[in-house]
Amino acid sequence: MNGKEHVVGKSVKRVDAFEKVTGRAKYTDDLCDKSAYVAKILHSTIAHGTVKSVDTKEAESIPGVVKVVTCFDVPKYYFPTAGHPWSTEPAHQDVADRLLLTDKVRFYGDDVAAVVAENDVAAAQALRAINVEYEELPFVLDVQEAMKEDAPLIHENYPGNILNHTTIRNGNYEEAKKEPGLIKVEGWYDTPTVQHCHIENFICYAYMEQGRIVVVSSTQIPHICRRIVGQALGIPWGDVRVIKPYIGGGFGNKQDILYEPLCAYLSTVVGGRLVKLDNSREETFASTRVRHAIRTHIISYVRPDGSFAARKIECFSDQGAYASHGHGIAAKGMGAFPQLYPCSNVEGDAYTVFTNKSVAGAMRGYGIPQAMFAGESHIDDVAKALGISPYEFRWKYLMPKGYADGFSKNVNYFDTFHQCMEKGKAHIDYDRKVKEYANQTGDVRKGIGVAAFWYNTGVWPISLETSSCRMVLNQDGSIQVQVAETEIGQGADTVFAQMAAETLGIAFEKVHVMTVQDTDITPFGTGAYASRQTYMAGFSIKQTASLLKSHILDTAQDLTRHTKESLDIIDGKIIREGDKEILMSLADLAEEKLYSLTNNGHLTAESTYQAKTNAYSFGCTFAEVEVDILACRAVLKKIVNVHDCGKLINPQLAEAQVHGGMSMGIGYGMSEKLLFDEKTGKPLNDNLLDYKLSTFMDHPELEGDFVENYEPTSAYGTKSLGEPPVCSVAPAIRNAVLQATGVAIDEIPLTPHVLFCRFKEEGLI
Amino acid sequence: MNGKEHVVGKSVKRVDAFEKVTGRAKYTDDLCDKSAYVAKILHSTIAHGTVKSVDTKEAESIPGVVKVVTCFDVPKYYFPTAGHPWSTEPAHQDVADRLLLTDKVRFYGDDVAAVVAENDVAAAQALRAINVEYEELPFVLDVQEAMKEDAPLIHENYPGNILNHTTIRNGNYEEAKKEPGLIKVEGWYDTPTVQHCHIENFICYAYMEQGRIVVVSSTQIPHICRRIVGQALGIPWGDVRVIKPYIGGGFGNKQDILYEPLCAYLSTVVGGRLVKLDNSREETFASTRVRHAIRTHIISYVRPDGSFAARKIECFSDQGAYASHGHGIAAKGMGAFPQLYPCSNVEGDAYTVFTNKSVAGAMRGYGIPQAMFAGESHIDDVAKALGISPYEFRWKYLMPKGYADGFSKNVNYFDTFHQCMEKGKAHIDYDRKVKEYANQTGDVRKGIGVAAFWYNTGVWPISLETSSCRMVLNQDGSIQVQVAETEIGQGADTVFAQMAAETLGIAFEKVHVMTVQDTDITPFGTGAYASRQTYMAGFSIKQTASLLKSHILDTAQDLTRHTKESLDIIDGKIIREGDKEILMSLADLAEEKLYSLTNNGHLTAESTYQAKTNAYSFGCTFAEVEVDILACRAVLKKIVNVHDCGKLINPQLAEAQVHGGMSMGIGYGMSEKLLFDEKTGKPLNDNLLDYKLSTFMDHPELEGDFVENYEPTSAYGTKSLGEPPVCSVAPAIRNAVLQATGVAIDEIPLTPHVLFCRFKEEGLI
Repeated sequence: MNGKEHVVGKSVKRVDAFEKVTGRAKYTDDLCDKSAYVAKILHSTIAHGTVKSVDTKEAESIPGVVKVVTCFDVPKYYFPTAGHPWSTEPAHQDVADRLLLTDKVRFYGDDVAAVVAENDVAAAQALRAINVEYEELPFVLDVQEAMKEDAPLIHENYPGNILNHTTIRNGNYEEAKKEPGLIKVEGWYDTPTVQHCHIENFICYAYMEQGRIVVVSSTQIPHICRRIVGQALGIPWGDVRVIKPYIGGGFGNKQDILYEPLCAYLSTVVGGRLVKLDNSREETFASTRVRHAIRTHIISYVRPDGSFAARKIECFSDQGAYASHGHGIAAKGMGAFPQLYPCSNVEGDAYTVFTNKSVAGAMRGYGIPQAMFAGESHIDDVAKALGISPYEFRWKYLMPKGYADGFSKNVNYFDTFHQCMEKGKAHIDYDRKVKEYANQTGDVRKGIGVAAFWYNTGVWPISLETSSCRMVLNQDGSIQVQVAETEIGQGADTVFAQMAAETLGIAFEKVHVMTVQDTDITPFGTGAYASRQTYMAGFSIKQTASLLKSHILDTAQDLTRHTKESLDIIDGKIIREGDKEILMSLADLAEEKLYSLTNNGHLTAESTYQAKTNAYSFGCTFAEVEVDILACRAVLKKIVNVHDCGKLINPQLAEAQVHGGMSMGIGYGMSEKLLFDEKTGKPLNDNLLDYKLSTFMDHPELEGDFVENYEPTSAYGTKSLGEPPVCSVAPAIRNAVLQATGVAIDEIPLTPHVLFCRFKEEGLI
Repeated sequence: MNGKEHVVGKSVKRVDAFEKVTGRAKYTDDLCDKSAYVAKILHSTIAHGTVKSVDTKEAESIPGVVKVVTCFDVPKYYFPTAGHPWSTEPAHQDVADRLLLTDKVRFYGDDVAAVVAENDVAAAQALRAINVEYEELPFVLDVQEAMKEDAPLIHENYPGNILNHTTIRNGNYEEAKKEPGLIKVEGWYDTPTVQHCHIENFICYAYMEQGRIVVVSSTQIPHICRRIVGQALGIPWGDVRVIKPYIGGGFGNKQDILYEPLCAYLSTVVGGRLVKLDNSREETFASTRVRHAIRTHIISYVRPDGSFAARKIECFSDQGAYASHGHGIAAKGMGAFPQLYPCSNVEGDAYTVFTNKSVAGAMRGYGIPQAMFAGESHIDDVAKALGISPYEFRWKYLMPKGYADGFSKNVNYFDTFHQCMEKGKAHIDYDRKVKEYANQTGDVRKGIGVAAFWYNTGVWPISLETSSCRMVLNQDGSIQVQVAETEIGQGADTVFAQMAAETLGIAFEKVHVMTVQDTDITPFGTGAYASRQTYMAGFSIKQTASLLKSHILDTAQDLTRHTKESLDIIDGKIIREGDKEILMSLADLAEEKLYSLTNNGHLTAESTYQAKTNAYSFGCTFAEVEVDILACRAVLKKIVNVHDCGKLINPQLAEAQVHGGMSMGIGYGMSEKLLFDEKTGKPLNDNLLDYKLSTFMDHPELEGDFVENYEPTSAYGTKSLGEPPVCSVAPAIRNAVLQATGVAIDEIPLTPHVLFCRFKEEGLI
């Protein structure tokens, strides 16, 4: 039997492995012309105020300085920055509150002026020579303070600094909580401001060509970038061309439009010359985007058997100074609350609140890591209050099989949570260890924590979900694949190639994915976010490959005189289905078709798939910690994530995703926090020395495991995995510390300082 | 009436005008990475011989030298170099006689070894340090000598050094010439070896990416380049990617594959690192391609009324050392002979003969400038012999209206020749001046010459004619256009934009032609040659724009609820045909379609058009000269070309084409000739100081005029104009000298040296 060999499901080597390990892969800076002008931004040195004047005279006289522009020079087109699909309905559009430069500064690091110079040194000198006169305003750094009536108003149209407030009202919380015999469990859970810390800081360059603007950018969202640069400059979107090379990580920060519009504008004021804008690490921390710090208040009324009678949640999300992705993140986080542990009576309120701090935007997990820290910490608190094992509690009350969400139409098709939890339990030897660690009394104690998570895939039905694909057949039977879903380091190109090879019936090596995207020619799509790459691109890849296959088989019918319906493509050969006889190679067919003097043609296919589905991904984390109580130090000894992200296209890449996410989750839980000076609003640890990013040195062997339930809504049975691995790590660690010490710590990161305070409160030290 | 405004036919500004005049347009060298290794070629210093050994030891020890490869190292895949569409039939394939480097050198300048170094200096030092030991062989530089039995054999399989010999046998020449009363006119006409002298020498660079070879090259034929690099390296063609930036002229030289295969190979031997190969002017002269020198022998038997009874032509074409475009050029030139002045009894023989000289390949006109020099000089000789005005002779006997060619199916649909000649005659005030110059006797005499030409469009039915196009609609109603026909300086991108705008009904400025071509994504097409760009691309542009328009109107039907059939696009707006009411802008339609939550789609269109037509272009040149007999100097005083290339898409660009061609024709007729040392075969004037390229200083005001007969086989009524302007210039000048002095000079260029010899022979001095 000459059946097809499957490439989907195999751990084939990354298509870009060699380029990346040899350092040959070209990133934005590598591609930038040697003739580039250098742009640098003058950031505000106060947290809130009005720019009275900017004196650029001295700066302009510095040799090598080409141009200085200030907030008073730039066009006044307010634009949004969120990497969301555009909506033609104004009500669904993102908040347009940014200008290229601003004379009302709202955070320490806001953008006041910019210089273009012939080189880095002149640009840096010019920045120092610019004199800005501010009228300072009172500022506010804390969300609860910002909501007070007398708080400084950051944006005119947002009283109470509230960007948005959404609610959940299911059943009747107030009535339900009156049921006799209920146990009330309440907690406040705090998550920190953290930064993405992608290795490649944000960088872009721009130049003019034939009257249009070309922007080469390290962005996750080239087609969205095109639109926003057009909006920011007030020019037709087709006059903007965005090119995306390899990028050194994004994690959601590059799902915002950062300085592409400014860079593009700067090119226009220097006659269209190439201008490069390369952020420093400090700028990346202070002036790009951070993860929303969310303070969550949860009250649960629980029956003695553990079932929930009534639940209430309040989320206060720190937006920082500008809207960016807006309320979506807090709303998404809160949205998980009634789904994960269904309860008939739920009251929820989520507030997204402006403060005079660095702007919060998208970051891997998009509200779910915050929500899971609060929600899954709270579950352990509930279990503790009831005296039930936290594992058993989850086993009993987590979203049941068959649960369907009314809004997204997502369905929990399988008994996934149980499968994941069982797998994780076995993996970490949970039962034995829980018993072993049951009655510890020493200064060093061990514990195992567990936390679950829920994550969806893509943005439907909130926003547009669409993916387009084009394929081109070459003379040797190989193809090119173009999609707008973007390789940002996660391995997307590799799985795209696998899926295309699978459907077309050719070898994986014969698929060339166009990794450099160019909005002028790359089919339309919205980019890398919402863990949508494989799920969404899968639709258009399968559809387009099928279309190309159909064109190929039409040609095969013509050349072999067999009916199209009796033919197939297996391993790059046209075969007769009945007896698997090889009739001709795809290479011969392609060559004949391209050069035929009688019936020539260029075999390509292109199509758009609009998805109107979404899919749940599920999973859990088991973490084992050793806590040295006197040293106030928790050490992570073992950790395992178990995921159901449907069918794995490439198990090795899937596991790599899990490792990366776990590492980020460990930093989130144990060490990372961006601090702001309370007196000035200045970021205090905006560098990789003082900001304690989780590294290889900080974690044990990272272990990932999978439950593969073929997702029925998906083209290749797959669903989200990009963000899920970060979601349940921090609460699992926090719960492990609780199990080890009996101390519930409702704030991350679990630094020695935090442990010291709590251990002292609880009388352990 | 809100009718369409036509953009086809308007002299809109070139799309690349600003980029080019400001020096901002990026050519191959501008795009090359700063990390590039430099490759240089060691060329043979003998005209014929065998390489016995190459000592590279010293070269390899030079600091900065990375790799030295010799003719003994390279793979032995013989490959063709001609920029012709591939044929899957071996009999129609070009001669594959090249290797990357050769141990049998066949001309002074052949390729023996190559070095890759970190910089230019090290590479140049290494070349000087390589020691080659040759076994010299006798060589031959003259075509007639090369055909002799005892001549040195240049290629084993070509006895008599004859690459090919084709014949014409119409009627019975031998019998027909016996008709009583015939006047016999006989001549030998010699054209020189000239070089294209594009401003940008040949340059390319290559590197490996994901196991494939990427070649960025100044080529006219990116898709053909992909195929030939694959053939030369023995790898699948899909493993090669060719990118073509702006190019600084080609004129046919870059319709050959020059050093792309070698450069690609060199990258593979240095681990895929980027290797740049930048030819010097000397290399461009000696080692790329030149125009075939053709010696033509014509005998005409003419009746006293001027009608031809029998004619014979023999062409001896100097191929140089390798086949390149092979016999096609001589064959095409001879093919014009029986068509231009139809005669029932014609005998023709064309020989293409190898010599030990620089390789002849394609050059603007592809055999027709040589053929027109011979044929149109001969017509003046005939007219003189008969005592008829050369103008009157042509008026009477040039190809009549309605003439159809049996092979190409080309038809002379209009009375074009008469229209062109009348226009040219009036333009130059022919009748008055001919009378004025009738009886000159002084040392300085004036004369007017005329010559006609014939040229076809594209290569059908000899080879494949195909063009593919893709269009992408943007949110603002603008589009991108991708075709494989290439901008090589002639303005192709501009007329492509005009044609697309015309058919789609949008503004010219809203069409963005993708000038940088990339074989991975640019739809298949064969490139810039055979004056096929506008004619061939026109088909696929019209077809694809119609397809895109159809998609747009489907969407318009959906959005406006009017039937598609009642709608049209005018000036970027969807209108109702009945009352020309504007229903919506194309921008609004595009935006709605791209972002629709109900029926989203990415509007693109792609299609291939295989042309099975060809089209005659016609025209003539009138030249006025002043000859200083004692100084042996002819000065061109006035010149006008009149062309019928069908409808002009862009009159200003058309005229620019004519000016460029005339300048090249003037150099061909008056000053240019590449000389070879008879003792060594070494090119003697391989630089722009000693080679007398025609420049602005050498010619009078260049004047072009047009007859616009809408070509019925053409998508936009247009046909070839790229090559025609060079075709009839030299014979017109030669005939003007004949009219001025009575001396027929059958050899170009008409240098003082040639004039001196002929004037002396004729007793004028």
